[in-house]
Amino acid sequence: MERLLGAELKQHVGERVTVAGWVHTLRLLGKVNFLRLRDRSGIWQVFFEKDETSQLDGLAPESVVTIEGTVVAESQAPGGVELHQPVVTVLSPVTEGLPYPINKPELAVHLDTFLNHAGIGLRHPKKQALFRLSAGVMAGFRATLDRLGFVEVTTPKLVESATESGANVFALNYFGRPAYLAQSPQFYKQTMVGVFERVYEVAPVFRAEPHATVRHINEYVSLDAELGFIRDHQDVMAVLTEVIKGILAHLQTHCAADLAALGVTMPATPDTFPQLYFPAAQQLIYEQHGEDCRGEPDLAPQHERWLGEWARATYGSDFLFVTGYPMAKRPFYTHPNPADPAYSNSFDLLFRGTELVTGGQRLHRYADYLAALAARGMSPEPFAGYLEVFRYGMPPHGGFAIGLERFVMQLTGAENLRETTLFPRDLNRLAP
Amino acid sequence: MERLLGAELKQHVGERVTVAGWVHTLRLLGKVNFLRLRDRSGIWQVFFEKDETSQLDGLAPESVVTIEGTVVAESQAPGGVELHQPVVTVLSPVTEGLPYPINKPELAVHLDTFLNHAGIGLRHPKKQALFRLSAGVMAGFRATLDRLGFVEVTTPKLVESATESGANVFALNYFGRPAYLAQSPQFYKQTMVGVFERVYEVAPVFRAEPHATVRHINEYVSLDAELGFIRDHQDVMAVLTEVIKGILAHLQTHCAADLAALGVTMPATPDTFPQLYFPAAQQLIYEQHGEDCRGEPDLAPQHERWLGEWARATYGSDFLFVTGYPMAKRPFYTHPNPADPAYSNSFDLLFRGTELVTGGQRLHRYADYLAALAARGMSPEPFAGYLEVFRYGMPPHGGFAIGLERFVMQLTGAENLRETTLFPRDLNRLAP
Repeated sequence: MERLLGAELKQHVGERVTVAGWVHTLRLLGKVNFLRLRDRSGIWQVFFEKDETSQLDGLAPESVVTIEGTVVAESQAPGGVELHQPVVTVLSPVTEGLPYPINKPELAVHLDTFLNHAGIGLRHPKKQALFRLSAGVMAGFRATLDRLGFVEVTTPKLVESATESGANVFALNYFGRPAYLAQSPQFYKQTMVGVFERVYEVAPVFRAEPHATVRHINEYVSLDAELGFIRDHQDVMAVLTEVIKGILAHLQTHCAADLAALGVTMPATPDTFPQLYFPAAQQLIYEQHGEDCRGEPDLAPQHERWLGEWARATYGSDFLFVTGYPMAKRPFYTHPNPADPAYSNSFDLLFRGTELVTGGQRLHRYADYLAALAARGMSPEPFAGYLEVFRYGMPPHGGFAIGLERFVMQLTGAENLRETTLFPRDLNRLAP
Repeated sequence: MERLLGAELKQHVGERVTVAGWVHTLRLLGKVNFLRLRDRSGIWQVFFEKDETSQLDGLAPESVVTIEGTVVAESQAPGGVELHQPVVTVLSPVTEGLPYPINKPELAVHLDTFLNHAGIGLRHPKKQALFRLSAGVMAGFRATLDRLGFVEVTTPKLVESATESGANVFALNYFGRPAYLAQSPQFYKQTMVGVFERVYEVAPVFRAEPHATVRHINEYVSLDAELGFIRDHQDVMAVLTEVIKGILAHLQTHCAADLAALGVTMPATPDTFPQLYFPAAQQLIYEQHGEDCRGEPDLAPQHERWLGEWARATYGSDFLFVTGYPMAKRPFYTHPNPADPAYSNSFDLLFRGTELVTGGQRLHRYADYLAALAARGMSPEPFAGYLEVFRYGMPPHGGFAIGLERFVMQLTGAENLRETTLFPRDLNRLAP
């Protein structure tokens, strides 16, 4: 008999059917006995008469079974149906206790313990919901950029030189010579603007940063986009705004049940996201909170929180662009603000008071690259392969990168990036 | 004035408009002078009167320009329109010669030379078409599996143990201890079957194989899928058949012009792909070609070609499943054929006589894993993290992996995998 999903049962009331899945819970009360079966469509109820329960002897939660039964309408049961007269076949028996229970409404377990047995813990319905959202973020990102004429690219993660910064890259032996794991597809996505004008990539990036915070891991998924023929960073910000809205719309259309299960409050997104120029943001903080960070080259997390509150109160927006970060704190390929060259045509997008996206306009003329490297005392020689394309015609361009796990963290209010990463990698964790 | 794409010009005949792109070709004949401008929508013609050509002085191909002009219907021009009375603004001038010309109908350059300057060479229209197909293959893969209820996952590429085989992995120093680059998401995608039943991943994999052939590179994109609640590998093959057809249908719908530009003959795909059991395939080769490979543990490339020809001649199919590869040649997690346990419930899918996909049913019971490892003299200890999920209920499952670059190679008839990889990595090449 073809297996049905639990979600299909309500179309088969009165029929004899077969379902399959995991034993989620067992309630054996003698006269009234229930098994709840979990499959990819949800959790479903099977009713056992007392003399039918011997089939369940020795069967621990997470056992994998198929159950043949008769579909009966039952308003108290999940989905309004349950199976009666069950015949259970065990596909994979479980005979030992789980590392921690995964059949309670909440998964109450210490994060480290959870992660040590992530392959089991991820089966919890709320964890499933979280990572379906993660898949939805990727799908929404791609769908929006496809619509805007972007082409998906796949660029190498094994690279010859420690690109953006010399530090914080993982090194390895590549057939006898050094290679590095890409920190970002930055150089390649710029190169590909010369080919397709508009490109995106969804791929892992690697950061050998030896710090242990709730907001940093050493391998994550970067949602990268880059586009040519822009006027300046404002065109990049306009595309990013469409992408953010496209992702949220995709989630509302495709992941509504998961958003509800996780109690997600969807972010407030006005037509255009408010923006503040970097020095104006510092001035605002000084005026509103008395903290004088004017002239500092960067914003502290508390500053970002204050700015987030301001955007929410003033514009009803959970998103805020801060533009014009000082050139001194941005990488050499950053395009300066022509009218105010100590500041850059770059931006961060704050989401609920925390940085989510970094982006900006890049230099596009070869001579400007040579000058920018010289001004920083850097040799162009290690960048020769990258710089070649700027000798042969690159349009004004820019782009951005969104951290997938951070997006889901900030959307769902998770407290640790490790909660929104399937199998996180950090200073202390390389398995499972 | 807002920039128009060349493809939009035909809706603006008689209007003054602005386009932007790269100077693809210049034909300055004195009285009749043409510039062909390349943008992401194609190649478009701009007509210059003799007294207008001074704007082009010193402008080499690949210069990036915007051109204001009047749209005139012209049946001889690409797209049936050209621009007249042009006013050229240079965004990025090119003043030196290209490493090789990229404005001829064919890119006639040695592969190594091409790859040394791939950032430029990829701008050639046929290269663009090739890598739009590559993007289309990924999109078709995802769209098909989304429709079939699969969930996209992102699993770590930094792993603790050299998983499937001890050899051929890249090792690196991970904060003072060894780590490896994942050869495949195999263990993680199996683990995630326990969570979502059906999962896929599109991500790079890394193989430290020190051989230099036209069919091997050291980093490639793997299109991985894995599904639970199967009867055996035949269910996996049925999903793979849908995926192959879904990808091809996606390309025909979304990349028709690129397929035409590259002269691609679409593969012949009968309703179900023919299949041969491994010993029967060897018997067929013996009978038809007199070569006795019966009893050998694997097929040689010439054997696969013969089988491909046979499938084409007998079933009108460019695809052929070979099932039941000997257990001895398959990894320890492979499920044996219960009726013939020296052979496995695995398969290769040959595409035009060359292996494109490998897949099969996996073991799903913990005791079977322990027995399989013991039979191979392998310790279960390094696999403890992976094996844990099998102690807690895994359904019968299986999956497959398609090499993205190989798919495009075999579809387009490219002679070297490096032609269908944006920035290939091999024994000798780590840049650009």
